[in-house]
Amino acid sequence: MATIDVLKSPTASPDDMSGLKLLSDHGYTAADLLAVIAKTEGNGCVNDFSRTLAAASWASVLPSDAVSVFSGGTEGVLAPHVCLVVSTSEATCPGAHAPGGALVAAVGRTGPVRHLDLGRARQATAVAEVVSELCLQLGLTSAEVHLVLVKCPLLTSDQVTECEFEGGEPVTRDTYSSMARSRAASALGVAMALGECSSAGAEAALRGELEVWSSVASVSSGAELEDCKVLVVGSSPSAEGPLRAAHTVMRDALDSDAVLALLRRVEAEGGEVVQVLAKAEADPSGSIRGRRHTMLTDSDLPSTRHARAAVGGLLAGLVGDSAIYVSGGAEHQGPPGGGPVTVLYRLGARRESDGDG
Amino acid sequence: MATIDVLKSPTASPDDMSGLKLLSDHGYTAADLLAVIAKTEGNGCVNDFSRTLAAASWASVLPSDAVSVFSGGTEGVLAPHVCLVVSTSEATCPGAHAPGGALVAAVGRTGPVRHLDLGRARQATAVAEVVSELCLQLGLTSAEVHLVLVKCPLLTSDQVTECEFEGGEPVTRDTYSSMARSRAASALGVAMALGECSSAGAEAALRGELEVWSSVASVSSGAELEDCKVLVVGSSPSAEGPLRAAHTVMRDALDSDAVLALLRRVEAEGGEVVQVLAKAEADPSGSIRGRRHTMLTDSDLPSTRHARAAVGGLLAGLVGDSAIYVSGGAEHQGPPGGGPVTVLYRLGARRESDGDG
Amino acid sequence: MATIDVLKSPTASPDDMSGLKLLSDHGYTAADLLAVIAKTEGNGCVNDFSRTLAAASWASVLPSDAVSVFSGGTEGVLAPHVCLVVSTSEATCPGAHAPGGALVAAVGRTGPVRHLDLGRARQATAVAEVVSELCLQLGLTSAEVHLVLVKCPLLTSDQVTECEFEGGEPVTRDTYSSMARSRAASALGVAMALGECSSAGAEAALRGELEVWSSVASVSSGAELEDCKVLVVGSSPSAEGPLRAAHTVMRDALDSDAVLALLRRVEAEGGEVVQVLAKAEADPSGSIRGRRHTMLTDSDLPSTRHARAAVGGLLAGLVGDSAIYVSGGAEHQGPPGGGPVTVLYRLGARRESDGDG
Amino acid sequence: MATIDVLKSPTASPDDMSGLKLLSDHGYTAADLLAVIAKTEGNGCVNDFSRTLAAASWASVLPSDAVSVFSGGTEGVLAPHVCLVVSTSEATCPGAHAPGGALVAAVGRTGPVRHLDLGRARQATAVAEVVSELCLQLGLTSAEVHLVLVKCPLLTSDQVTECEFEGGEPVTRDTYSSMARSRAASALGVAMALGECSSAGAEAALRGELEVWSSVASVSSGAELEDCKVLVVGSSPSAEGPLRAAHTVMRDALDSDAVLALLRRVEAEGGEVVQVLAKAEADPSGSIRGRRHTMLTDSDLPSTRHARAAVGGLLAGLVGDSAIYVSGGAEHQGPPGGGPVTVLYRLGARRESDGDG
Repeated sequence: MATIDVLKSPTASPDDMSGLKLLSDHGYTAADLLAVIAKTEGNGCVNDFSRTLAAASWASVLPSDAVSVFSGGTEGVLAPHVCLVVSTSEATCPGAHAPGGALVAAVGRTGPVRHLDLGRARQATAVAEVVSELCLQLGLTSAEVHLVLVKCPLLTSDQVTECEFEGGEPVTRDTYSSMARSRAASALGVAMALGECSSAGAEAALRGELEVWSSVASVSSGAELEDCKVLVVGSSPSAEGPLRAAHTVMRDALDSDAVLALLRRVEAEGGEVVQVLAKAEADPSGSIRGRRHTMLTDSDLPSTRHARAAVGGLLAGLVGDSAIYVSGGAEHQGPPGGGPVTVLYRLGARRESDGDG
Repeated sequence: MATIDVLKSPTASPDDMSGLKLLSDHGYTAADLLAVIAKTEGNGCVNDFSRTLAAASWASVLPSDAVSVFSGGTEGVLAPHVCLVVSTSEATCPGAHAPGGALVAAVGRTGPVRHLDLGRARQATAVAEVVSELCLQLGLTSAEVHLVLVKCPLLTSDQVTECEFEGGEPVTRDTYSSMARSRAASALGVAMALGECSSAGAEAALRGELEVWSSVASVSSGAELEDCKVLVVGSSPSAEGPLRAAHTVMRDALDSDAVLALLRRVEAEGGEVVQVLAKAEADPSGSIRGRRHTMLTDSDLPSTRHARAAVGGLLAGLVGDSAIYVSGGAEHQGPPGGGPVTVLYRLGARRESDGDG
Repeated sequence: MATIDVLKSPTASPDDMSGLKLLSDHGYTAADLLAVIAKTEGNGCVNDFSRTLAAASWASVLPSDAVSVFSGGTEGVLAPHVCLVVSTSEATCPGAHAPGGALVAAVGRTGPVRHLDLGRARQATAVAEVVSELCLQLGLTSAEVHLVLVKCPLLTSDQVTECEFEGGEPVTRDTYSSMARSRAASALGVAMALGECSSAGAEAALRGELEVWSSVASVSSGAELEDCKVLVVGSSPSAEGPLRAAHTVMRDALDSDAVLALLRRVEAEGGEVVQVLAKAEADPSGSIRGRRHTMLTDSDLPSTRHARAAVGGLLAGLVGDSAIYVSGGAEHQGPPGGGPVTVLYRLGARRESDGDG
Repeated sequence: MATIDVLKSPTASPDDMSGLKLLSDHGYTAADLLAVIAKTEGNGCVNDFSRTLAAASWASVLPSDAVSVFSGGTEGVLAPHVCLVVSTSEATCPGAHAPGGALVAAVGRTGPVRHLDLGRARQATAVAEVVSELCLQLGLTSAEVHLVLVKCPLLTSDQVTECEFEGGEPVTRDTYSSMARSRAASALGVAMALGECSSAGAEAALRGELEVWSSVASVSSGAELEDCKVLVVGSSPSAEGPLRAAHTVMRDALDSDAVLALLRRVEAEGGEVVQVLAKAEADPSGSIRGRRHTMLTDSDLPSTRHARAAVGGLLAGLVGDSAIYVSGGAEHQGPPGGGPVTVLYRLGARRESDGDG
């Protein structure tokens, strides 16, 4: 049974495992975990060891087929936290049981991404295959998918050198850029699987010749893994439970209208926001609504840190909660300069034993 | 006549003087300038030479009694720009002429702040005297003041060493901290002048024994000046013109409610936002609404940069404009973790020749 | 038996445990470890999770009474590596066995440092007691000590807030500054134990009224521990073995003369450098030999990062090895702007199975 | 007459013009200036406004045909300063007058570099032409050239967007990378002009297919100019005067041997070092002498800042002076990971009125 429950627990540090206590407070155990989705407090870039530390901490308690997505970077107001996705059933998941439409989820992973394949069509294809399989497994149509979260590798200096030693040419020699290239390929894989673009379109997009994007992909890259991990979340007509989701796309980093509209939909249903997951990026044109931004010319601060801080500040202010998932670098995830936003919400009353005290 | 007009011009770099063209497009000359208020694209900290460059560029065209406030740091979506405050009269200031309540402004400056006085009561007192004098000059009561903008000095390594060489003890040896201390003293000076705290209260606050704050002070420090420059903006019952102002205080960095309420007031009057001026800071408690933030433990990125990015992202999203003035470090400017927000707006139709194209 | 052997192993990441292989290649096991001294590739500041990751990785294999000193920051040419200090005996430690004068070492730790005691006399006293005890245990006079390595805690935002909540005043509210205050107290503790200053002198130094320093203390602070860990290394007249040490003090960051003289001494003895351990800092006066430096006014980059990069560049160039231990922030460790340098060297031929290939 | 004198003046800030006083102390005026070569205290990257500020400050006093090379970044111990190159003659240049071999210099500039040409063969060719012409003008053979200093433009976000709008593809979209591409093309231009590579070789090098480099090129890029400025310095057999130069190439960032040998040559001639000019870079392989470095995986700090700090620390320590010119990013300037080093020195006694007091 793929129905899920979602718990959110603030963390005092990347290796804070108090989320396990929250699990047990709700009658779950680590064995029920399908995924851990977290914001850790590193720079979110190549040398972000907060992700590695968190991953190492959770590795020992996660079921072997569960996935973890540790996204670094809690710039500005953003609060480090973990979001625990557990497999559940009607019996264990309390709250209002609206007939149908509850959240279901499934996870999978590609094989290891060869260094030479990173950021290229093979990576996109590998991700697409996993996404397709998971949708099939969940019985979801593309329209029923609200979020496809992917965690994928990057290239370190050693790996770049290794590629070249073997006579190959990596997609980029710049380690920070490799994060963007990996996100791009993964996002296009999601788009392919959901019918948002064709395989040829994805390849053209990778060559920079076409602008296509997924409206539900959310991809984060890191040095702490070698394959791509995938989490698909959707609303299943046949699943019962109080958890719901809605998503939209911010057309740029100022698009409060899209977010407010989304939040009004949730409110209209009597829903209470459990988690917000969003992607943000510096508009590649160098300006937003005709005004110059400086994220791409600031050599002191990577643009992904700028983008997380700004969009995180907007979203946290709008939902009144800073423990949300905002990830930087939205290549082919929403339109250029914008990004997808998914809200997970709960119908019915707030549960008392929430760990956020 | 102290009535003002306000023009806003995006800048391509700190030394971009195209604002002069905007002035002339509106029938003004540099001689009409009362103040230049700008966001430049440096780090907003001790070694921000974008401020110095902008100051040097404008110094040659500014009237001798005008002031400039160059605030560094356009993190996230924020757009570098200059906001030109010109003295005007009914004749030259177009638009709807509501009877009374139009914006008036005056500027002044303290004498040079001795290095040993920086961040201490003498600086506060000096600022208070200038603010009081300007209010008197404008005939404004405290309640009619919407904004007191102050630009004040900091301590460099050389100046710290100089203090010690002379046998004195500077308020801090840390150059970045000296910015905060200077802002604190200036803000308390504003609070004293406006009756928001007593002189004894300001001194207790400087010792860290009392939390008091001004709801209209907006202070920025920099290495490019030696005195404190002050701009007082208020609504005068006897002044006519289309420009108006309203202000509020964000109680924390997530306080979208306060901002939305303010914007609704402006909208209700048929006003069009000309400029937003806000202060932002990392909540000194280390958390916001019970959630930990990491701005004060991030050794890679000064907390003022974090705060500007986040609150700038929220405000820019809410007003739909990224060329706004958000300044970091809100010591005694609004409650801890929050900050004052002032909106300048224009009654009646938007002027065609706005420079923002 | 306190005689030691020292092995150095490069690391591919903070959690690289290939040093264990090096140990076994030399006939040792993790049970022989007295200390792990490492440079990890974080920022070396408050939010350096590379240290925590390394500490977590080694915690499971270290004997309970061994200590680890993970110092973050490999700016410039510095190479991440671990330096393994093992207890040995004549039988297991190969190479030339000069009669007497071989290296001995012992480790210990204080109890947890209360947040309010951090950076204050109590911390200094606690460290002094441990150092004295270890010297006694090793039978070393102060003159025979070549290095006292200390790892000590810092204050996070949460801990600062906790102090204040309990009505106490932490030594500083600035988390980055707390690192310096903790190092200062620890270094003064070392100085007290070795007779380099009196207890009253240490207290005066903590108040900033007196400049005293240790010529062998090397202190690093971090968020990954709550007590102070201490390693004392000295030359024992009664210990036999090929490992030796020599130390000097750089009077400023340009003092290549002191280092070259030290290296010539080692060379004159036919020694081969095994490891260099040095402290570095931005000269607190803001200048070096009358020339201004900018480490204390660069708000983008903490001064400790600057100092490690520069002094690391000098030392690595002089010894021709970038896998050396250079730690930033030398409060009371050598003269202001300078710092102690200790060289561990081996008499006789280089061992074949060195792990640095 | 192309004979030069060189004066060095520390600066208190990028706009410190006290060098003019030093000029007059030595009997020169600004009209005698051939070039100003300076280290300013910015980040040395895209958004380094310390360079622009310095350039603006000097622009008004420089003769129209003089050039300025403002190189940002005084990481670590490096001291901000200006180095003033003046045209002189036997009469005005005091000191020992060795027969022949004195320093001569000439300056020139290319036309504006089109955005699409930046980092490509056209830029290299344009630089080569200027260098060839200057050598001809000075009557220097390639072997007599000790230094070719080039300052060249970069691409900002606006310029990248402009290129694309016009249908062209810039050499890179990454603004920081554009600095490296511009330096590479300029350095290859120098190499072509001096016969260090062929035109075909330079093109292959630009495509990444060939590793060639100049042993005297020193190139710095910046946003503050649109053309390439060139300064050629050499020893002319027919020029008399006390100033001399020697150069070498560091094979990597640890190569103290090369530098010490160079300094010994200067000492053997009784020379006193006036200025050191060096290029530094992160070894593109990710390691130095088999040891990993982290300059290319540190997303918090650009690799050029790391490299300047480390090599600056080494050179300043070896010459005992921190007011030296070390510039980051040595593409085709010396071997990969290394860089050229030029020492300007004076035969005979030190002049009393040196400005460095």
